[in-house]
Amino acid sequence: MKKIIITGFEPFDNEVINPSAEVAMSFAGKLINGYEVLYFQLPCIFDASIRALDLMIKQHQPDMVLCLGQMAGRVDISLERIAVNLNDARIPDNQGNQPIDTPVLTDAPVAYFSNFPIKKILERLRAQSIPCSISQSAGTFVCNHVFFGLMHLIHDSDKKIMGGFIHLPYLPAQVINKPGQPSMDIGLMKTAIAITLDVISS
Amino acid sequence: MKKIIITGFEPFDNEVINPSAEVAMSFAGKLINGYEVLYFQLPCIFDASIRALDLMIKQHQPDMVLCLGQMAGRVDISLERIAVNLNDARIPDNQGNQPIDTPVLTDAPVAYFSNFPIKKILERLRAQSIPCSISQSAGTFVCNHVFFGLMHLIHDSDKKIMGGFIHLPYLPAQVINKPGQPSMDIGLMKTAIAITLDVISS
Amino acid sequence: MKKIIITGFEPFDNEVINPSAEVAMSFAGKLINGYEVLYFQLPCIFDASIRALDLMIKQHQPDMVLCLGQMAGRVDISLERIAVNLNDARIPDNQGNQPIDTPVLTDAPVAYFSNFPIKKILERLRAQSIPCSISQSAGTFVCNHVFFGLMHLIHDSDKKIMGGFIHLPYLPAQVINKPGQPSMDIGLMKTAIAITLDVISS
Amino acid sequence: MKKIIITGFEPFDNEVINPSAEVAMSFAGKLINGYEVLYFQLPCIFDASIRALDLMIKQHQPDMVLCLGQMAGRVDISLERIAVNLNDARIPDNQGNQPIDTPVLTDAPVAYFSNFPIKKILERLRAQSIPCSISQSAGTFVCNHVFFGLMHLIHDSDKKIMGGFIHLPYLPAQVINKPGQPSMDIGLMKTAIAITLDVISS
Repeated sequence: MKKIIITGFEPFDNEVINPSAEVAMSFAGKLINGYEVLYFQLPCIFDASIRALDLMIKQHQPDMVLCLGQMAGRVDISLERIAVNLNDARIPDNQGNQPIDTPVLTDAPVAYFSNFPIKKILERLRAQSIPCSISQSAGTFVCNHVFFGLMHLIHDSDKKIMGGFIHLPYLPAQVINKPGQPSMDIGLMKTAIAITLDVISS
Repeated sequence: MKKIIITGFEPFDNEVINPSAEVAMSFAGKLINGYEVLYFQLPCIFDASIRALDLMIKQHQPDMVLCLGQMAGRVDISLERIAVNLNDARIPDNQGNQPIDTPVLTDAPVAYFSNFPIKKILERLRAQSIPCSISQSAGTFVCNHVFFGLMHLIHDSDKKIMGGFIHLPYLPAQVINKPGQPSMDIGLMKTAIAITLDVISS
Repeated sequence: MKKIIITGFEPFDNEVINPSAEVAMSFAGKLINGYEVLYFQLPCIFDASIRALDLMIKQHQPDMVLCLGQMAGRVDISLERIAVNLNDARIPDNQGNQPIDTPVLTDAPVAYFSNFPIKKILERLRAQSIPCSISQSAGTFVCNHVFFGLMHLIHDSDKKIMGGFIHLPYLPAQVINKPGQPSMDIGLMKTAIAITLDVISS
Repeated sequence: MKKIIITGFEPFDNEVINPSAEVAMSFAGKLINGYEVLYFQLPCIFDASIRALDLMIKQHQPDMVLCLGQMAGRVDISLERIAVNLNDARIPDNQGNQPIDTPVLTDAPVAYFSNFPIKKILERLRAQSIPCSISQSAGTFVCNHVFFGLMHLIHDSDKKIMGGFIHLPYLPAQVINKPGQPSMDIGLMKTAIAITLDVISS
């Protein structure tokens, strides 16, 4: 059976929840357009996150991989366009690592584009009244790290895999004590990801 | 029977929907802690809006009045603290009026405080994980205008009426083509107003 | 001789500089359109700041009083329109006081408007290409506190005194480690205040 | 003699001035640490801008090239880290071209890193109290386009050339009618670029 792997991250930066895991896990075991959806949670740790993702991909041989992450300050569903071969951590990851200006992978190019049809996803989300945008930077922390690891693995793979990364805003509960910070309802996030999965699998 | 009047505005500024009316009307006819809730939509027009509100209050003799409005750029439920005796319109209202530096009402003070227990509402909303804040300015357009008209009427009234104004963010559907603009789910808005009505009527 | 008092605040909130004092003191002793300019620095302390201002005004009998303050997040010269009778401190002042929901002054109205010609100042500043705006809230900390104290004293005074408050953004040096925070050049701030003093004294 | 080429752009997007040209031209003919500085203005036009830059580089054989641009919304001196092989124009360029999702150059990689010592520049600017940051995206308009063209040319060149791109905020005069938009003093911008030129040429 054809397979889609969807991942979310464990909480980080003193949060107790991460919308990316909450949203991603809601698709675990679902059947979408003939694809089985497999969910995995990734650790918010440099290198270990990529190793975990590589292992899952090698083991399950998915046709598509969608990684979700959380980004403070984002107001909408952010379709990431570019994964960059760079770690530059402003804060430590969940294991205390804080790489500064190191490559994600040596012997790899500067960047990869997502091979998701992001403009088509954008159009479909907007048609459903869901705030969304194309983002040109997934940052330089673990999210971009995993995104780059994914795209590199896809590039090196014999199998043609479709891969992409989407950043979600904070959940409302996360911004109670963060004045001025935007957030988004989890139901809307789930609808957005359901539409995304439908677009890529149709 | 004790009564609460809740109002929302018609759409303005080229919008086709106004979350304040959508949210407010969902409480029409509800019974909350022994209070009957009456809903009215206000025109987004200087003076006419206050006249309409005054008429409803005189006719229905409510114990409490909660007016809702929409404010671009807001990220959370904004509990307005101060109504100012000032019209200074950046854009025309729905009838083409654009008063600049005029008083809302002559022979009235510079400002009124809301007499809602806004800190208690804030606390209750946060306890329910709803993003909210106290706002020190409801602007200088029709929202502040109605808020000032309401508080002046309450001040002049023999009956002790509780009155306040809450600004809501855009709905997600309104920001599809407004990059970077925050929005909020209507379900969360309704929950916030339900909690607010519960606090003031308990 | 006719007199203008201009004030700035001492640094607060862990800053080592306050642009309001730097800008205000640069006008100390200047003669503008026949007015002598007197400069005083105010402590960033509730009540003590108003007492100090009152004393100076009583002693020097100025014709005009311009108080300057600093506000984080502001992008331009903010001409404050409304002083509110409310203290609601998010952080302690320089003496550790943190009043919550108390009046600035008892037996005083809810708010006063500045009696500066703020729209004329706005127009003149823009004509000189200086970013500026009208602000409807000077906050609920010591700046608004002093502004309210000033306007109340003016209101109670036999002498017709012109009074107003202007908020300045951070200086560039203050935002070095505050990512995303706007700032403004001190030279531009000084030009803005020179124009303001010229407008009110002409 | 060793040479540095510095470029700025002509105004675009209905502006009558572009800080990048104003700042860059102020260094025309200067001698910095033994390097002669050559200034050129680039058209804000896809392809034509890269052709112009290529021609200058081939003709003058510089050791270093610093391109400056203007970016709305930026609050500080933005040291661009990554040039992406992508045109995706939200507005037409000065010749009416509006490429959507096209490569800057075919047969070129997805992205290049600037080979400026950006962290060293960042440190030196902050030591001089100048607001600055590293940016992970120069956008997808003509600025990124020229940046990518520059880095590709450098990569293909036999000569070891140092190249980078810096985004400047709006000038104060540009935001007079853009409420909420940050700006920066031109003197501070020039100091920032003087320091940058000193760092790269030392």
